[in-house]
Amino acid sequence: MSDQPADSSTPLRLRRWEQRTEVPLFVASLFFLLGYALRVLVPDHTQPWRDLALTLVLATWLLFAADYAVRIRLSGQGLRFLRTHWLDTVVLVLPLLRPLRLIQVYTAVQRRRAQPRLSLYARVISYAGMTALLLGFSAALAVYHEEHLAPGATIRTFGDAVWWACATLTTVGYGDVVPVTPRGRTVAAGLMVCGLALLGAVTGSFSSWLVQVFTREDEKRPPGRG
Amino acid sequence: MSDQPADSSTPLRLRRWEQRTEVPLFVASLFFLLGYALRVLVPDHTQPWRDLALTLVLATWLLFAADYAVRIRLSGQGLRFLRTHWLDTVVLVLPLLRPLRLIQVYTAVQRRRAQPRLSLYARVISYAGMTALLLGFSAALAVYHEEHLAPGATIRTFGDAVWWACATLTTVGYGDVVPVTPRGRTVAAGLMVCGLALLGAVTGSFSSWLVQVFTREDEKRPPGRG
Amino acid sequence: MSDQPADSSTPLRLRRWEQRTEVPLFVASLFFLLGYALRVLVPDHTQPWRDLALTLVLATWLLFAADYAVRIRLSGQGLRFLRTHWLDTVVLVLPLLRPLRLIQVYTAVQRRRAQPRLSLYARVISYAGMTALLLGFSAALAVYHEEHLAPGATIRTFGDAVWWACATLTTVGYGDVVPVTPRGRTVAAGLMVCGLALLGAVTGSFSSWLVQVFTREDEKRPPGRG
Amino acid sequence: MSDQPADSSTPLRLRRWEQRTEVPLFVASLFFLLGYALRVLVPDHTQPWRDLALTLVLATWLLFAADYAVRIRLSGQGLRFLRTHWLDTVVLVLPLLRPLRLIQVYTAVQRRRAQPRLSLYARVISYAGMTALLLGFSAALAVYHEEHLAPGATIRTFGDAVWWACATLTTVGYGDVVPVTPRGRTVAAGLMVCGLALLGAVTGSFSSWLVQVFTREDEKRPPGRG
Repeated sequence: MSDQPADSSTPLRLRRWEQRTEVPLFVASLFFLLGYALRVLVPDHTQPWRDLALTLVLATWLLFAADYAVRIRLSGQGLRFLRTHWLDTVVLVLPLLRPLRLIQVYTAVQRRRAQPRLSLYARVISYAGMTALLLGFSAALAVYHEEHLAPGATIRTFGDAVWWACATLTTVGYGDVVPVTPRGRTVAAGLMVCGLALLGAVTGSFSSWLVQVFTREDEKRPPGRG
Repeated sequence: MSDQPADSSTPLRLRRWEQRTEVPLFVASLFFLLGYALRVLVPDHTQPWRDLALTLVLATWLLFAADYAVRIRLSGQGLRFLRTHWLDTVVLVLPLLRPLRLIQVYTAVQRRRAQPRLSLYARVISYAGMTALLLGFSAALAVYHEEHLAPGATIRTFGDAVWWACATLTTVGYGDVVPVTPRGRTVAAGLMVCGLALLGAVTGSFSSWLVQVFTREDEKRPPGRG
Repeated sequence: MSDQPADSSTPLRLRRWEQRTEVPLFVASLFFLLGYALRVLVPDHTQPWRDLALTLVLATWLLFAADYAVRIRLSGQGLRFLRTHWLDTVVLVLPLLRPLRLIQVYTAVQRRRAQPRLSLYARVISYAGMTALLLGFSAALAVYHEEHLAPGATIRTFGDAVWWACATLTTVGYGDVVPVTPRGRTVAAGLMVCGLALLGAVTGSFSSWLVQVFTREDEKRPPGRG
Repeated sequence: MSDQPADSSTPLRLRRWEQRTEVPLFVASLFFLLGYALRVLVPDHTQPWRDLALTLVLATWLLFAADYAVRIRLSGQGLRFLRTHWLDTVVLVLPLLRPLRLIQVYTAVQRRRAQPRLSLYARVISYAGMTALLLGFSAALAVYHEEHLAPGATIRTFGDAVWWACATLTTVGYGDVVPVTPRGRTVAAGLMVCGLALLGAVTGSFSSWLVQVFTREDEKRPPGRG
């Protein structure tokens, strides 16, 4: 849960660092995803592209590591930082999970704006929907990477992987294409758990919003039998 | 979300236009669906029926386009209208999504009535259920259209397509019949996302209604241990 | 929804009739289910059992029809009764849906007791769970009846049908055994829609109950950081 | 539901016994699970390990039985205890369901602490998530045990069983690996029902937590259009 780690117990300098780096790091994580996508999707014989992709992945990951080191330093907690900011630690080791930090980016962006443009439910839906989208895309890449050459695999093209990710995130689960390798299945299990919670948030918020719209409609008219 | 676009920021003439055209346009969209269904379901050699269907589809779509043009004009926003009314824009390009505008039809119909006949939950359930039904039927048509002649397809009859749409909307997802073409899968992904949210609203409202019924039962008796 | 049909707008005599007959009719509906189960599950050559089953089904159905006729009479509404009590009308034509009336049985039983023994959530869960159980069992019977002799069927034994009903009600939907005939699929679609809403109520109530237990735990201790 | 059985209606000595034994018994149930896992997973020819596993399972089960007997004695209820503590009775017969009692362990642990370290939602999520994890692992073991030698089975390795448990708990239900024996399917149906409710609690709490975070964000700024 890591309920607002940047609150009262955090040193001021760390908080400032986090506010300033949050958006650049989010952009860097998009470049990381781009590099990973290139690396996975580009055919083997196009060497220059693959080298570029690898460079992109390594450079952005070094950036994440540097940010992590600076934050350990600024926090003054030493190794205890690994435990108190466990989500950041996980995200450093598995950068494809970075979209999960989107809520902190959102907070950082909001702080600069005067007021929110969207209603509460719209913000929850757009936040959770976007995180689900990025996680789903990352999972489709990772599963395609693990599966497409495995013997007996049903996920053979990237289109299959995206189709699989859609069916998984919405819990429909047709089972026409499924991961068969242990690593592919591990990624899939992660997607199920993370994605389900996010999709649950979207569905729940949409349901609440719909009830709100209908309630507001009631209030505009003279009270009836209801 | 497009939270009541026809409120305070909308010119009066646009609002009146929308109130007057909402129901006729909804009827037109049912004719569009009928035309599309005829076009898709009628066998190839029955030329007169197919021509009628095509005429119906084109005529109703021209009506939608004309309404859209009038509304751009009345809004006085020019091309900014495309962004502020993005749901209308999407619906113009993909008229099969028109059921999503049902909530505005509902609002327009309600405005003429003195008071709602149904309880809040019943209205949410009937609105979301009806939208889900229309979207499911449209998706079944579109998927049948894309799939039934594809090599290796499992959706071969319209009955298969309806069965697939049921299993998808309820997230059961047996996977005995699934789309295999890229376009069929795109339609399917759209149905999952739209439909899930609507079904979530139905389930959530039903659950709340049930709790309400039981709570009311409690209030009728002297307070006990609870 | 048929929000408490037996309230203020109902004649007193009809209300009394409903209170008195509700429980006997529920018992009769269990006999109906038993008869139907015997008819479906007993092998073809055991004639006496099949005759008994048929008698049971017909006798109980005649009871339901007689009750329905008496209620039309007592209501003084004539044919309008078919519309105002549409759930009862549906249940008369398809007696396997009778468990849906369980909420009225519950209300009738509660009226005789001094106070509820269970908490609100426990009652919603037990009501919805029991309805889901009865509907699932009925659907398994009906699907087994339609499917077990169909060409290409995967539901061959009653055990398969029960397994299919479990996977459908919980929306897991493995798809290893699925109905293939149009009538079997129609029953399945009905089970998905009815069952999902009921299971949604169970899940939602359980979730609320769990939050309540943890909240109560908080209140027992001196207020902390929380 | 068995709403806090250890409250006012329970004799003081029974309550003390339960508070003292809850944590040791939970540790014993982890050993039971370990023993069962060893017994199921270790190959047939490694006799010493299998004997150790059997000893572990029997010893811990005797511990559970002894605790149950002491509690019947202390309660002074005699055989009525079987009904009033039906969850405990079920758990004694099927010790793999013991994780369901985790909520009582949690309560016992909390009582010793000054105040909760986590927010309400975080506690519900961690409780329900951990129970779901333990139940899923137990079900994977049991299903693997029943299935892996059955003719026509698709669950052949323990990895398959874990993969199946993930897909079942999240209601994705691919259906690529499914139990085929009656006993395996019974375990599966139990996992669906128990697990779904727990996962529903996790999803619901996460959704509520997300809305809370966004609401808190609103309160920090001057009230806007919202």
